[in-house]
Amino acid sequence: MSELQVDDLQAMLAKARLAQRRLAQVPMQVRNRALAEMARILREDAAEIEQANQDDLTRARESALAPGLMKRLALTPDKIEGLARSLEALIGLADPIGRGEGRRVLANGLILETIRVPLGVIGLIFESRPGVTVEAGGLAIKSGNAILLRGGREAKASIRALAEAWHQALNSAGLARDLVQCLEDPDRRLAEGLMHLEGLDLLIPRGGQGLIAAVVREATVPVIETGIGNCHLYVDADADLDMALSVLVDGKLGNPAVCNALESLLVHCAVAPEFLSRAHDRLSQHGVVFHGDPPSRTIVPDMLVADEGDYREEYLGLEIAVKVVKSLDEALEHIEQYGSKHSEAIITQSYHTGQTFLERVDAACVYWNASTRFSDGFEFGLGAEVGISTQKLHARGPMGLEALTTWKTIAYGQGQTRDLR
Amino acid sequence: MSELQVDDLQAMLAKARLAQRRLAQVPMQVRNRALAEMARILREDAAEIEQANQDDLTRARESALAPGLMKRLALTPDKIEGLARSLEALIGLADPIGRGEGRRVLANGLILETIRVPLGVIGLIFESRPGVTVEAGGLAIKSGNAILLRGGREAKASIRALAEAWHQALNSAGLARDLVQCLEDPDRRLAEGLMHLEGLDLLIPRGGQGLIAAVVREATVPVIETGIGNCHLYVDADADLDMALSVLVDGKLGNPAVCNALESLLVHCAVAPEFLSRAHDRLSQHGVVFHGDPPSRTIVPDMLVADEGDYREEYLGLEIAVKVVKSLDEALEHIEQYGSKHSEAIITQSYHTGQTFLERVDAACVYWNASTRFSDGFEFGLGAEVGISTQKLHARGPMGLEALTTWKTIAYGQGQTRDLR
Repeated sequence: MSELQVDDLQAMLAKARLAQRRLAQVPMQVRNRALAEMARILREDAAEIEQANQDDLTRARESALAPGLMKRLALTPDKIEGLARSLEALIGLADPIGRGEGRRVLANGLILETIRVPLGVIGLIFESRPGVTVEAGGLAIKSGNAILLRGGREAKASIRALAEAWHQALNSAGLARDLVQCLEDPDRRLAEGLMHLEGLDLLIPRGGQGLIAAVVREATVPVIETGIGNCHLYVDADADLDMALSVLVDGKLGNPAVCNALESLLVHCAVAPEFLSRAHDRLSQHGVVFHGDPPSRTIVPDMLVADEGDYREEYLGLEIAVKVVKSLDEALEHIEQYGSKHSEAIITQSYHTGQTFLERVDAACVYWNASTRFSDGFEFGLGAEVGISTQKLHARGPMGLEALTTWKTIAYGQGQTRDLR
Repeated sequence: MSELQVDDLQAMLAKARLAQRRLAQVPMQVRNRALAEMARILREDAAEIEQANQDDLTRARESALAPGLMKRLALTPDKIEGLARSLEALIGLADPIGRGEGRRVLANGLILETIRVPLGVIGLIFESRPGVTVEAGGLAIKSGNAILLRGGREAKASIRALAEAWHQALNSAGLARDLVQCLEDPDRRLAEGLMHLEGLDLLIPRGGQGLIAAVVREATVPVIETGIGNCHLYVDADADLDMALSVLVDGKLGNPAVCNALESLLVHCAVAPEFLSRAHDRLSQHGVVFHGDPPSRTIVPDMLVADEGDYREEYLGLEIAVKVVKSLDEALEHIEQYGSKHSEAIITQSYHTGQTFLERVDAACVYWNASTRFSDGFEFGLGAEVGISTQKLHARGPMGLEALTTWKTIAYGQGQTRDLR
């Protein structure tokens, strides 16, 4: 297989568009069949897929990939089974295509109907998690789109095996293999090519802050910004502190490397002495490093000094920034200043405080007495996600099938005109 | 009043944001009251507003503004009454805020609800039509947003009078005047300032192709592209030619200066001899210039020669490009190649041909036996529009209240965690 060049992208897009046009005309049953076939193949060929993944892992070990990335790269039997189940969850969801709010008949008899239609061809840039090939491919096919997937080179053998599985699945369902195309990118050339691929209907960058910022800044195709999560937990004066502690532990230790993990802890001064001592005892056992403001450090002198940078940082690791606040307003102001509008949580038994927090926090997801870790397409019942949008336009929060659609208004007339009456 | 500077924009945005936060918390009745007050003031102060408009018109005549622009600039009593009615139509519409598809309860008891919330602060750049101040302001207030309006300097006296009316209306309803702020821009500096106003939630450019292209290319804030309409009418072999003629006349002569006017005519070869002769007879009486391909010019030798540029051009005037096609497929290919995905129409009595056209044309609005001129917020029952989106993300076609909202997922828990079970 000769190396792909940026010049090849237009040809790939043209093939994808042709295949997508046909896909847009097949009933949901056929799209679901492709997903069911993919789930079957994932299970049947699990050993081969794991073998390909072993090749990636061996190469990754040789190049001393960071442990967090190694974990994301690994395709265990459990993860493969999880991917198959995610496809089955997608099969069970309603068809997003053709949905609308029904017909309107204008006074002149013109019938208007606005319905959801597929976006067309979607590009996705991702890094080391090979399972994205399955989840994003499944969402794209179910919603009537074609997808160009550019994964990280460290996952290339795994992605190649999964792409092969998609091609078999699409073929079994009588669909074109061009619907799911994987781009092997030796460097960042193809990623950059996608950013400027005229006619691409949407490009979603998934990955590190650097990649996302570069795509948002440079792309000339439509983009949705994803995944920067500087999430806060605010422990109110009226909090159940046991609950607060378990939500904190879940948010910080559950999976620190992801965007819905907690990065900052705000604690009301009335409960700070007890809560910060307990939180520090519990989390520091697991290696979490605390960065606190002066009041926090009076309570727990072991904390490092928090500076402005700590409140801005998405650590994605075993660190947390802490601030003691005197009021809900101070917490809200801090979140507004430093938050990334992804997910924010409050722990309180106060009705008024909780309602005010839900109302006033401007973020994709706002939790009252629950963990920010639920901000996830599968948890939200979307089957999977192509990413978590942190922007306000088009899609916000976990992006499932609807995020991959647009609208079309169709009108049935009898010769109606507007100015000739 | 001293001249506004780009540096003032951040302060205006901060004031708008503060006012918007309060607006987001008032019930719809209060937002509607501001609209009702505005409608009342427009009627009561119609004479003053017309006087201000006369000042603009006088200046425009002195600087020899093009007749099309003069027409857009003029605020006649009819137009003012129309604006008041458009506000009343908005009052009658359901509240877009708080709408959603209801609650979902996850297996662990976590309650999730995704609802529509206001975008925040919206910027609008427009040109000579002062009525935009009323329509866009009404949509913004009804949907819980603040708006920064930067109109063309040729309309500055009219816009100033309408801004004053908004301030009175907002004041009567107990709302902050900072919700509707008009920017007097002596040149393009403030327009450019808006493109880079960090924190602005959405910028909508309305106006000429040059302005829109510049905003889309240069803006670092979120933008929705509007209003380029290279709309086609396809007259099929099975068309009712009387109907086709009246839809053509409406589309070309109703208001040639707008984006939903017809720019190209595609005619099936089976009906071309009769239809093109009749179309040319009828439209050339009104000064319409035809640019035809060789087969059209065989039928009507008076046509000018159409080149590639004619098929690409949005004339916005009394010109039309014509092409004879041999099949529906050829018409669809032409539309795909040259259309701007705004509005496209077919005239046919054939069920199969009509359905295929609706299915296969990729555009915001597709008409079967009706005029493209209906692509308009007021006609669509949206009360008014902030523009007509020609992009696929966030909003497509006429943008009403929903286009000015985003989503927020709120979650009510009892301490649910994801990884600590």
